[in-house]
Amino acid sequence: MRSVLITGCSRGIGLELVKQLTAHKSAPEFIIATCRKPEEARALQELSKKHKSIHVLKLDVTDFSSLGGFAKDVEGIVGDEGLNLLINNAGISGNKTAKLADLKAEELAEIYKTNTIAPILLTQALVPLLRKAASHNASAQLGIGKAAIVNISSGLGSVSRNTFGGYYGYRESKAALNTSTRSISHELAADGILVMTLHPGWVKTDMGGKEADLTVEFSASEIVKTLFKLGKEHQGAFLQYDGSVLPW
Amino acid sequence: MRSVLITGCSRGIGLELVKQLTAHKSAPEFIIATCRKPEEARALQELSKKHKSIHVLKLDVTDFSSLGGFAKDVEGIVGDEGLNLLINNAGISGNKTAKLADLKAEELAEIYKTNTIAPILLTQALVPLLRKAASHNASAQLGIGKAAIVNISSGLGSVSRNTFGGYYGYRESKAALNTSTRSISHELAADGILVMTLHPGWVKTDMGGKEADLTVEFSASEIVKTLFKLGKEHQGAFLQYDGSVLPW
Repeated sequence: MRSVLITGCSRGIGLELVKQLTAHKSAPEFIIATCRKPEEARALQELSKKHKSIHVLKLDVTDFSSLGGFAKDVEGIVGDEGLNLLINNAGISGNKTAKLADLKAEELAEIYKTNTIAPILLTQALVPLLRKAASHNASAQLGIGKAAIVNISSGLGSVSRNTFGGYYGYRESKAALNTSTRSISHELAADGILVMTLHPGWVKTDMGGKEADLTVEFSASEIVKTLFKLGKEHQGAFLQYDGSVLPW
Repeated sequence: MRSVLITGCSRGIGLELVKQLTAHKSAPEFIIATCRKPEEARALQELSKKHKSIHVLKLDVTDFSSLGGFAKDVEGIVGDEGLNLLINNAGISGNKTAKLADLKAEELAEIYKTNTIAPILLTQALVPLLRKAASHNASAQLGIGKAAIVNISSGLGSVSRNTFGGYYGYRESKAALNTSTRSISHELAADGILVMTLHPGWVKTDMGGKEADLTVEFSASEIVKTLFKLGKEHQGAFLQYDGSVLPW
């Protein structure tokens, strides 16, 4: 993997993925880390000062009119060899304790816009660069060494595992992201692009809360291991951080 | 079942359900049939002239600010015995042949608003009337004779069955509707309200197209049979028109 782009890198899993990929024995040459407000993302800025491989780009994934220009900026960094890996990580949880009576249309729409529509449209904007990477590495096995899209989803997006309800808006957006992942995987398989969706576990981040199961370091280290193991058998798959398969 | 409310009744499955429920041996006393433009819904208007049980109400399910007033109108019709059955049928397909490159954020948002957010918010608005019916029929078995919400979904909303892609926006909205159905079923189970999601089959309607498998008459007749068979074992279920269980 020569290049990777990760959204939502100011904190949490996105930031930790940047850290661990930078320190990896097969560290990519280009790590493009996006966030909404680079000027406030101090940890990311500190990290990028120490590592030339890290390119911090400003991106609000819901500012759809900016995606064309953004893709050109990415092309300016990765060049003719294209982009190997896109990790759609940016997301929001919405009000985690809302009941049916509390739900508001605008909030449900906002979660869907960020968690579902934005990954689809960013994928749309970057597909030409992913295709370039797939062509450039035509003889490589399907995976992140060729071209891949990894959507950071959630176990809460598993409809079959929705045995206790709650998390309105978030569950819907992630179930929708999961099926869009499948649709995109069918469409892009012939281009040599792997497309899959990944549950990072319940992680101690601002989103996951302090009671969560996993540290962000552990989750990210497992995710990185899983990324490097991805192959054609994972086309359209829904995996957990540790590589185990989740039910839809 | 004393009362039923069905959205999207100007044509297709909604209109046919109104017809068949009107003619049913256990026909409800109140059949509230909504559509966006009653003045243009000639077949529905003709039908309602012949049957006093049919009440045609104007409703754009995406006009969320109207739902409070709408619920009061429904209460005015059904009275203190509440509403037994809500069928969230109104929906849109979006561009059925769009590829990833064709997708537009506004269209994806519009499909989600109509197919996912609207059923949630209409349910929210009508839950007090469904609770009334459940209380009024406290000794009845769980089902449409007590209180029930049936969301008209689609087999295309099954993530596990998304083995060929396409139908962007529509698949996402229906997968999301399916998980919201599960969440709402968990929340309302204690109130004695059955909540489930139903695939009408691939039906020869304006949405399904002429090549579809089933006539609207056949689909609706199977749906009506299935409705009358619903019980506690279907809480949170995803059934096909004929009552068979679909995978998530």
